[in-house]
Amino acid sequence: MVLGVSAIPFTFVAHVLAILGLVFVLVWTLHFRGGLAWEATNKSLIFNLHPLLMLVGFIIIGGEAIISYKSLPLRKDVKKKIHLVLHAITLVLGILGIYTVFKYHNESGIANLYSLHSWLGIGIIVLFGIQWLYGFLVFFYPGGSIGLRSESVPWHVVFGLILFTLAVGNAAIGFLQKLTFLENLGLAKYGSEALLVNFTAVITILFGAFVILSVLSQSPIEDENNKVTSSLKSISLVP
Amino acid sequence: MVLGVSAIPFTFVAHVLAILGLVFVLVWTLHFRGGLAWEATNKSLIFNLHPLLMLVGFIIIGGEAIISYKSLPLRKDVKKKIHLVLHAITLVLGILGIYTVFKYHNESGIANLYSLHSWLGIGIIVLFGIQWLYGFLVFFYPGGSIGLRSESVPWHVVFGLILFTLAVGNAAIGFLQKLTFLENLGLAKYGSEALLVNFTAVITILFGAFVILSVLSQSPIEDENNKVTSSLKSISLVP
Repeated sequence: MVLGVSAIPFTFVAHVLAILGLVFVLVWTLHFRGGLAWEATNKSLIFNLHPLLMLVGFIIIGGEAIISYKSLPLRKDVKKKIHLVLHAITLVLGILGIYTVFKYHNESGIANLYSLHSWLGIGIIVLFGIQWLYGFLVFFYPGGSIGLRSESVPWHVVFGLILFTLAVGNAAIGFLQKLTFLENLGLAKYGSEALLVNFTAVITILFGAFVILSVLSQSPIEDENNKVTSSLKSISLVP
Repeated sequence: MVLGVSAIPFTFVAHVLAILGLVFVLVWTLHFRGGLAWEATNKSLIFNLHPLLMLVGFIIIGGEAIISYKSLPLRKDVKKKIHLVLHAITLVLGILGIYTVFKYHNESGIANLYSLHSWLGIGIIVLFGIQWLYGFLVFFYPGGSIGLRSESVPWHVVFGLILFTLAVGNAAIGFLQKLTFLENLGLAKYGSEALLVNFTAVITILFGAFVILSVLSQSPIEDENNKVTSSLKSISLVP
């Protein structure tokens, strides 16, 4: 481990931040923005599905999928299945979340794919799909050779964390973008909705940081498999 | 190391991206946005100092400071001084860059500190100042005990990388925010300036990723000090 402390306090804080993030995005979309809808004449209600699905579906469930593999006191093969299924849900909800914003744009006559947020979003979901598929094929079914698995693990972890970090950063970009649009339409810059959206972004970033801190800390159990893997993959961040 | 490959290719790509980032931000501020100025009746020229100082001063020099400690084929005490001095320059240019945007806002009658970008920016620069000061006191002068140094190294590395990641993310947020303002004033969404700014943000993010990949890879030399530190701090990202 990089940090010689238990992952448990970090994962606990991450779970609390996840719940806060869910509550904040629900208050925003339901209370301030008029609610959620798949079909509506008020197209903003279709848009509102986007932050909910991306934050809760893609970032929070994705973060919990990372935490689950690190921190659940279960056997490695059980944790692997939980990790795989949670990330499959992440992928599906992420694709659905991206679909909702195209639906909103198309039904409202807004241009698609001109912003940094959209570019990064498409890039991240494609790379995440590839990462999930590679993980499925090599670590689950049909499964790669011991050599390939052992070679792949550190790259899987590093690319996974880079993608997760990019997703968190892109969520923050999305919150700022939407809020800037709303402020240009007259929303008060220091009003309660603006503060709520900014704090939702801050909570999202803190959630990301605590997921990463939990990965860099010590797992609650070290079974035989883990010991072997740990000794194979011992690393140092200092040169 | 997490990744069993040499850091050199990653640091090479990072340097190329740093040069591209510098060129792109200069083309943006000088060619598209009318140039740079400390005093001007056209207040936008004062604003233009902000992306230049933050990207080149804070992110690129900050990233190079990280890379320098990892990858220069020099003795540890020499690398430490280079790392310290580059990060001191980073801090000074970062503070100056933040000052320019307050100067622009105040001289233009624009509200301060309402946006996520500003909140994160203030948070990052304060934490970076604390991180630098702690590093200076513990690792340089007067220097902590061997035990304190050895305890501090992984936290210094992890918090440094988290702060660097936040700075890269906040730069991307800043590019999107400024571009959204300009697009609201009529700038073409698919025009050459919009593409340039979005690609500058993409280059910044790629630079951040390659700095982090270089930190996770193998240093070109392993002197006696490094061997000791490495064995003390051997870590695993897999549970």
